[in-house]
Amino acid sequence: MFFCGVLLMPRLIKKRSKKAGLSPGTLIHIGEKRAEKTRIRIIEYDEKIFQEREVAKIEECFPLQDAPILTWINIDGIHQVEIIETLGKHFGLHPLLQEDILNTDQRPKVEDHDDHLFIVLKMLHYDDKEKEVTIEQVSIILGPQFVISLHEGDSDIFNLIRERIKNKIGRHRKMGADYLAYTLMDAIVDHYFIVLEKLGERIELIEEALVAKPTQDTIREIHKLKRELIFLRKSVWPLREVVNTLEREEPPLIQVSVAPYLRDVYDHTIQVIETIETFRDMVSGMLDIYLSSVSNKMNEVMKVLTVIATIFIPLTFIVGVYGMNFKYMPELEWSWGYFAIWGVIVVVALGMLTYFGKKKWL
Amino acid sequence: MFFCGVLLMPRLIKKRSKKAGLSPGTLIHIGEKRAEKTRIRIIEYDEKIFQEREVAKIEECFPLQDAPILTWINIDGIHQVEIIETLGKHFGLHPLLQEDILNTDQRPKVEDHDDHLFIVLKMLHYDDKEKEVTIEQVSIILGPQFVISLHEGDSDIFNLIRERIKNKIGRHRKMGADYLAYTLMDAIVDHYFIVLEKLGERIELIEEALVAKPTQDTIREIHKLKRELIFLRKSVWPLREVVNTLEREEPPLIQVSVAPYLRDVYDHTIQVIETIETFRDMVSGMLDIYLSSVSNKMNEVMKVLTVIATIFIPLTFIVGVYGMNFKYMPELEWSWGYFAIWGVIVVVALGMLTYFGKKKWL
Amino acid sequence: MFFCGVLLMPRLIKKRSKKAGLSPGTLIHIGEKRAEKTRIRIIEYDEKIFQEREVAKIEECFPLQDAPILTWINIDGIHQVEIIETLGKHFGLHPLLQEDILNTDQRPKVEDHDDHLFIVLKMLHYDDKEKEVTIEQVSIILGPQFVISLHEGDSDIFNLIRERIKNKIGRHRKMGADYLAYTLMDAIVDHYFIVLEKLGERIELIEEALVAKPTQDTIREIHKLKRELIFLRKSVWPLREVVNTLEREEPPLIQVSVAPYLRDVYDHTIQVIETIETFRDMVSGMLDIYLSSVSNKMNEVMKVLTVIATIFIPLTFIVGVYGMNFKYMPELEWSWGYFAIWGVIVVVALGMLTYFGKKKWL
Amino acid sequence: MFFCGVLLMPRLIKKRSKKAGLSPGTLIHIGEKRAEKTRIRIIEYDEKIFQEREVAKIEECFPLQDAPILTWINIDGIHQVEIIETLGKHFGLHPLLQEDILNTDQRPKVEDHDDHLFIVLKMLHYDDKEKEVTIEQVSIILGPQFVISLHEGDSDIFNLIRERIKNKIGRHRKMGADYLAYTLMDAIVDHYFIVLEKLGERIELIEEALVAKPTQDTIREIHKLKRELIFLRKSVWPLREVVNTLEREEPPLIQVSVAPYLRDVYDHTIQVIETIETFRDMVSGMLDIYLSSVSNKMNEVMKVLTVIATIFIPLTFIVGVYGMNFKYMPELEWSWGYFAIWGVIVVVALGMLTYFGKKKWL
Amino acid sequence: MFFCGVLLMPRLIKKRSKKAGLSPGTLIHIGEKRAEKTRIRIIEYDEKIFQEREVAKIEECFPLQDAPILTWINIDGIHQVEIIETLGKHFGLHPLLQEDILNTDQRPKVEDHDDHLFIVLKMLHYDDKEKEVTIEQVSIILGPQFVISLHEGDSDIFNLIRERIKNKIGRHRKMGADYLAYTLMDAIVDHYFIVLEKLGERIELIEEALVAKPTQDTIREIHKLKRELIFLRKSVWPLREVVNTLEREEPPLIQVSVAPYLRDVYDHTIQVIETIETFRDMVSGMLDIYLSSVSNKMNEVMKVLTVIATIFIPLTFIVGVYGMNFKYMPELEWSWGYFAIWGVIVVVALGMLTYFGKKKWL
Repeated sequence: MFFCGVLLMPRLIKKRSKKAGLSPGTLIHIGEKRAEKTRIRIIEYDEKIFQEREVAKIEECFPLQDAPILTWINIDGIHQVEIIETLGKHFGLHPLLQEDILNTDQRPKVEDHDDHLFIVLKMLHYDDKEKEVTIEQVSIILGPQFVISLHEGDSDIFNLIRERIKNKIGRHRKMGADYLAYTLMDAIVDHYFIVLEKLGERIELIEEALVAKPTQDTIREIHKLKRELIFLRKSVWPLREVVNTLEREEPPLIQVSVAPYLRDVYDHTIQVIETIETFRDMVSGMLDIYLSSVSNKMNEVMKVLTVIATIFIPLTFIVGVYGMNFKYMPELEWSWGYFAIWGVIVVVALGMLTYFGKKKWL
Repeated sequence: MFFCGVLLMPRLIKKRSKKAGLSPGTLIHIGEKRAEKTRIRIIEYDEKIFQEREVAKIEECFPLQDAPILTWINIDGIHQVEIIETLGKHFGLHPLLQEDILNTDQRPKVEDHDDHLFIVLKMLHYDDKEKEVTIEQVSIILGPQFVISLHEGDSDIFNLIRERIKNKIGRHRKMGADYLAYTLMDAIVDHYFIVLEKLGERIELIEEALVAKPTQDTIREIHKLKRELIFLRKSVWPLREVVNTLEREEPPLIQVSVAPYLRDVYDHTIQVIETIETFRDMVSGMLDIYLSSVSNKMNEVMKVLTVIATIFIPLTFIVGVYGMNFKYMPELEWSWGYFAIWGVIVVVALGMLTYFGKKKWL
Repeated sequence: MFFCGVLLMPRLIKKRSKKAGLSPGTLIHIGEKRAEKTRIRIIEYDEKIFQEREVAKIEECFPLQDAPILTWINIDGIHQVEIIETLGKHFGLHPLLQEDILNTDQRPKVEDHDDHLFIVLKMLHYDDKEKEVTIEQVSIILGPQFVISLHEGDSDIFNLIRERIKNKIGRHRKMGADYLAYTLMDAIVDHYFIVLEKLGERIELIEEALVAKPTQDTIREIHKLKRELIFLRKSVWPLREVVNTLEREEPPLIQVSVAPYLRDVYDHTIQVIETIETFRDMVSGMLDIYLSSVSNKMNEVMKVLTVIATIFIPLTFIVGVYGMNFKYMPELEWSWGYFAIWGVIVVVALGMLTYFGKKKWL
Repeated sequence: MFFCGVLLMPRLIKKRSKKAGLSPGTLIHIGEKRAEKTRIRIIEYDEKIFQEREVAKIEECFPLQDAPILTWINIDGIHQVEIIETLGKHFGLHPLLQEDILNTDQRPKVEDHDDHLFIVLKMLHYDDKEKEVTIEQVSIILGPQFVISLHEGDSDIFNLIRERIKNKIGRHRKMGADYLAYTLMDAIVDHYFIVLEKLGERIELIEEALVAKPTQDTIREIHKLKRELIFLRKSVWPLREVVNTLEREEPPLIQVSVAPYLRDVYDHTIQVIETIETFRDMVSGMLDIYLSSVSNKMNEVMKVLTVIATIFIPLTFIVGVYGMNFKYMPELEWSWGYFAIWGVIVVVALGMLTYFGKKKWL
Repeated sequence: MFFCGVLLMPRLIKKRSKKAGLSPGTLIHIGEKRAEKTRIRIIEYDEKIFQEREVAKIEECFPLQDAPILTWINIDGIHQVEIIETLGKHFGLHPLLQEDILNTDQRPKVEDHDDHLFIVLKMLHYDDKEKEVTIEQVSIILGPQFVISLHEGDSDIFNLIRERIKNKIGRHRKMGADYLAYTLMDAIVDHYFIVLEKLGERIELIEEALVAKPTQDTIREIHKLKRELIFLRKSVWPLREVVNTLEREEPPLIQVSVAPYLRDVYDHTIQVIETIETFRDMVSGMLDIYLSSVSNKMNEVMKVLTVIATIFIPLTFIVGVYGMNFKYMPELEWSWGYFAIWGVIVVVALGMLTYFGKKKWL
């Protein structure tokens, strides 16, 4: 429900104005309520143990935090401000950080708060029915032995990671919280490619429409696509800096062994950005094609029609001459006059057609 | 009264010429007189005490400056040059700094004068009646125990901060002058989002007009919007550097505990700038839609009208032929000639319509 | 006489070719002779003394150079190569520096020659009669106790500075040669604002013309303005670097107390550049308005005229039918036939008008 | 089969989605199967010895790896995942590196894995039949005594290098593995020039078509070319950074004597990039020519045709007047009336022609 | 013979493909043979001695190389590969450097080979007959006591430098090889201004044509100019970096006293680049003027012609009505009917003219 054409952008910003004039650090949820109910799931694991449970209250997951075991708290639905508040108090999160979680209008960023890293990302979904991209904010808090992930909606694409941990697929069980945080980011970035594919298909369809029969709807489709690409770019572009910061500045919470994985995510991010830029180049080229195609079709129509009119107008003049009622018009008396005039008409018409043909106007 | 269309920009600059040729540091007010009377309000507070009063003369607030208490001097209306002068003498402000306060054509900037920081910002208002953005300059001087804020007009959006200090909401009472200066900046930047919302609504309206019935007025609206965005960008862009300087260079007057708050303002500034850029991208796309929409509508008209004309011109020729007055025209004598000619007319007309239909010209 | 439309630019460059093939450091005046006669004025002053005189020969001002007093040599008209040569020999100026003074096609720049700084600036004038901007080169040589300023034409805007020194207005008498050089630069940059104002007024006039009655002349005006802005930008843009270098690199000839003044000039330069950029954005938007305005007006004309033609062409066909001379045409015999045909004509005409009206083609 | 017009880009990305949701480091071939069968060729050589053989199983080439002799393993066709896996185990390649080899959608890059360098490049081919550029990924692994090169398709352009090594042409026999890796890169970059030539020829053809007879196909050709240049640029641009990194960072695996050769490759890469940019500039200029050419031709047609119509319409009116059947029309009775009317017709026609000629409308 | 319109660019690149697949360092001449015969001239000089001679074989100039005297070897025509090879062997030039001399498609660059500097520049000529710019490559090798300059064609502009050395004009006799190399570069850059002048004149002519009578040829002229500017820019832009490197990195072969001269060349290079950019801005503005001028002229024609047609079409309808042959048409019987109809015609015509005049359609 994000890119709903004309309505999209003002709504995005309107929410923001709820905050203006409030004390900094005041917690207010900015954004649509995407999930019906907040859902909290906790996964605890190390090389041997794997526990998974769903809790009703956020407090239930706290006793476990100091255990040597790795804890992943996954929260779907962030509209319940008090949950974030309780979480913030327990883990010692800065008030502004809590504010950032709730403000879904956030730019992707990474912040190093010494004992935890705070990462904001944008998740992209493609709504096949509405043919639009929806953007959702995901916040990840990485501590020494825990990872907290918070979504606006529900976190389908993280289920696969849960499965992998459970079934001991991949390196999860042997690696720390930093690796888990990396796989979450990787899953999000990998999902971008699916969205890009869908957009690629739409570009393909538009191009076909352009060649076959360009209409005013095509232009609107192009415009919509252009706009979605503007927003996509805005969501993905800062990610580059985020991943680069994580890789280069080597915060103490991220171990050296995870660095090559981050470099991989960085490469993918660059690829996503380049594909978006390529799409933009393509879409902007389409408008030119459209305009030249429309004007060509128009020109063709105009030309043929004008040629027809031009041939008959002089002929109509000729027959008009002999429709005059002058008393004395010698041609009218000639018995072969009528046929002669048909001859003149044919000669004039053929002459003009030849001339137009020579000039390649037909 | 700022973006009054055509009149806007020259007026802005004209004022400047009053200064050319004067000695540097000469104090002259450049800008419109926005407030009727200069209004000076002083607020003094620490964790326990809170005093608020309005003074007639700027000198009244000076004795308090050396007290250990925190003083906030808020001045609305800067057109009275002598007030700035007295203030400058008392607080030891550089003549060029005083000049900058009075010159409302200033670029946002920050200057570190060792014992005080000088910050220039732009406040944006949206005038709902005129449907325009107005820009107002706000200067903030931050000393160890005092903050001076100077506005061109009146400072509505600072009232909320006064209320919060009075009612002990937020962290004001526990923090220093640097935090107060931060909240002033934060209030201004937060207000930008309201202005952006209004512009977003206008963009929405224009887009609807483009789809429904584009007129020459729509183009003018787009042009006006484009222009306002140019000026908005000019006002907000340098702010990025200002906040970044404050955060990175860590001037001694700003304590470490305020740094995360400044980073938050920085994030918001980036967001404002990105939204302006997005708006610009959108508005520039609109012109293309408009032009293609207008030319499409025109083409449609021309095509149908031309088709009608083209069908009837040959037919007129045919009937013209039998309007000729030749003595010997065999067809005229035939009793079924008239009906035959109607047949020819119908056949020619249908033939042309079929041809045009096949070519998809209708 | 600079921006004389089409003739402007080639003339600028043609002069340059006089130099090609000559030994580097050969002194040749490149540029128009702007002043009739070279005029040399010397001002000597310290806190107490003030002497002003005009000399016929450049040698007359040399004995004074080593005195502890501050000397300002102001030269209007640089076409007399021998004066520059004598000056160069006396003050030990590098041959290439002398060449740069004479070559009025120079880019604004600053060069640190240890015992003197060499600054090249562009002075802008607005010729109200020709409605054009003229560009003039000003060279400033700053030594420990002297300032030499060289103009192509005459230096009106420096007269005010002379007056101020004479009448002890401002800080001149207490400050050194660096402050004097600063005020010269400040006067030039302040003068830019006057030129920008004039251009702003012209933009305003063009915009009004665009709204009222756009003609081919408007386009030419826009083109001329665009071109002037290109040249303005070329003249002012490098200034930014010049002033920044002076402020940041802190050459020994410039004292710390002058730095804030240079920062002020820097701010003004940025403002001038930003205003030029804003003007460029505005002017480029104008072309779009013009084109859409012209095509709109044209479309309106074409539409109404075509509608008229389209209504009458079928009607002409109808009356043509009954102008045929067939022997047997039953309608012609009917006594009410003529009136019936008028009925048909009115019905067809009204039908077409209704259709066009419904389609909003009228 | 790469640039197949509309189908190109989505297919490129679709493959990628196979990976989303999989554990990082899972090996899956992304891309088309270009070679029928994987073909493994091993060349071992030092100053004296030269052995060349083709093996069926990748394991056959391993015993040789520790010998002091230099080994070049060249693999055509990478779709057999197990080969890469075996290779990776034997040479200790990072799982992500193996993934990168298989993912043919990779960006050109270089990675330093201490005991080996991993280089990804794009090979360009020009398909003369389809008139399209195809892009193929080449991975090069450079170890202390071995080079492994992996292609999607077959590696024709490396045959020349094999010949040169065999026949002792050039410096190969005296230099190390780093020189071999350099020559592979050099061969790829040199091949770019051939592709650019072909594109240059197509640009030439399009320009000729533009001058001779621009059609809608020309526009489509331009669009296709534009698109290919977008993809070419995307493939070549990151190479600049790759070669620069190799030259500047001086990884231990690359000896000082090879540095000037890398600088040479760097120069060529810059040249390729600049040529692509030049092509883009040219192609974007073409669209303007096309549009102005089409509209000029159209204008010419319209003008002549309209002139003809305009001359005859008033004449038709005149003869219409004397076709009226009023009882009393004095002119009709005059015996020279008919000839007089011809005179009027000729005068009007000549008058209009003269007027149009004067206005230069013909 | 360089910018021969359409044929220009492919030819440039085609030559390159001769190299693909060859061993790096293989010497092949890439480019046209510009000089009939290679011509080798040697000048030896110090403060007292001056010797000049032309040799047939390159070996003749070698014995002199170790003498304390300064040697300048000037070679016109580089197509004889063996000369470059002999030269390379004698002076110890790297094979890749020799390759670069022969490859006339080189980018301007500077390379520091410890005992000699290698500089590649582009010489521009303006062919007055063909009205095109030709680009020629000049390589300069600067050693401690020698300078070797190599041209594709003949080196007219260096004759002046030879004359100056001979006649002891300028500083040559007192300075070293670095100063000689500088003067060669200076001569080339100074020559750029002459080419720019010629282009400036052509821009002037095109602008006049645009105002007077824009034709399709004008567009082609603009396109050609645009293209030449693209190539000019490509040739001159890297020069900036070259001269900057020489000035900043202070290679040991260049003495401190030459640095200010290099800064001067740098300034000129910047000026050339800026002029090219200004030309580009101007030329791109021209296209807009052209299009608006053409469409304005067209509109004017169409409008007047359409007005004429529109007035006469309704009139023709009116006279058509009274050409009908109905038995009973009362108006026809009236004796003043004919004159009345003339009255109606005049009224209708004047009415329409008035209406069009009011709407400003005429």
